[in-house]
Amino acid sequence: MSSHHEFIPSNEVYASSFEKGGLTLPPKKQLIVVTCMDARIEPLSQIGIELGEAHIIRNAGGSAQEALRSIVISQRLLGTNQVAVFRHTDCGMLTFTNEQIRDKIVSAASGDAAVAQAVNAIDFLPFPTLEESVKADVQFLKENPLVLEGTTLTGWIYNVHTGKVKQIV
Amino acid sequence: MSSHHEFIPSNEVYASSFEKGGLTLPPKKQLIVVTCMDARIEPLSQIGIELGEAHIIRNAGGSAQEALRSIVISQRLLGTNQVAVFRHTDCGMLTFTNEQIRDKIVSAASGDAAVAQAVNAIDFLPFPTLEESVKADVQFLKENPLVLEGTTLTGWIYNVHTGKVKQIV
Repeated sequence: MSSHHEFIPSNEVYASSFEKGGLTLPPKKQLIVVTCMDARIEPLSQIGIELGEAHIIRNAGGSAQEALRSIVISQRLLGTNQVAVFRHTDCGMLTFTNEQIRDKIVSAASGDAAVAQAVNAIDFLPFPTLEESVKADVQFLKENPLVLEGTTLTGWIYNVHTGKVKQIV
Repeated sequence: MSSHHEFIPSNEVYASSFEKGGLTLPPKKQLIVVTCMDARIEPLSQIGIELGEAHIIRNAGGSAQEALRSIVISQRLLGTNQVAVFRHTDCGMLTFTNEQIRDKIVSAASGDAAVAQAVNAIDFLPFPTLEESVKADVQFLKENPLVLEGTTLTGWIYNVHTGKVKQIV
């Protein structure tokens, strides 16, 4: 059975004691957190954010580059002025290169041309080191003309084995 | 004071009772949830997912199109075979068009050419209706040659005022 069938009974329990229906659209802390999709990450509890306080952007690796569209919408329409970029230990993005994942997918499709074309169009944004990648992402945001001047920018690594965060930038 | 300074003391409390350090990289439920960055969303508690069970991808609107890179990595390297796409009521993406946000940003920059060029290069992916947008995203994944055949695909709307989910697809 797929997990999807479990959403409804679990959600009924959640909704039955839901008391946050009055929260409004703009994040109360004017904060954006960018982090990885990794299943071991739950940023609210891990860094003490309450529901309604921050925009949470998540993708493979926690790429600020891919998050740019969302960051611009968040800042220009909903007033955020802080971005915290997170990476985490044991990240899958440290384990492959663009060439390796493309080869793997094209091989699995027996060289299918549509698959090869689609996969070659994607930059999977892997990175070889955590700290350098955090620094590069913060720098990318610092230099981007669409990120508002005066935005507080920080960079962090979350340790999935200890539950601890470490500030890098 | 920026919210970032509060991460460390909050995280120290979290880490002091952290007991999930043994979780491994692949999501236990082989599940991906795609949802919005909205501050009122916390998918784990809202649909009954535990830490370690699912990849969570979040961006402005919960776009599956933007999530494709992450979905491909999740499926090909970490074995997921289910994708649940969520939209939510009162979403900011319902309130503007590409033209409106571009005009707003270029005006705020007094017509600066670098800003205009950067902003015109971005499709902000707004949508005028929730249900249609959920359906279109699920269809996009269904037809995409990079999404594995046999992937369970569902589409949902989360109500930020009641805490309830409704299945659309």
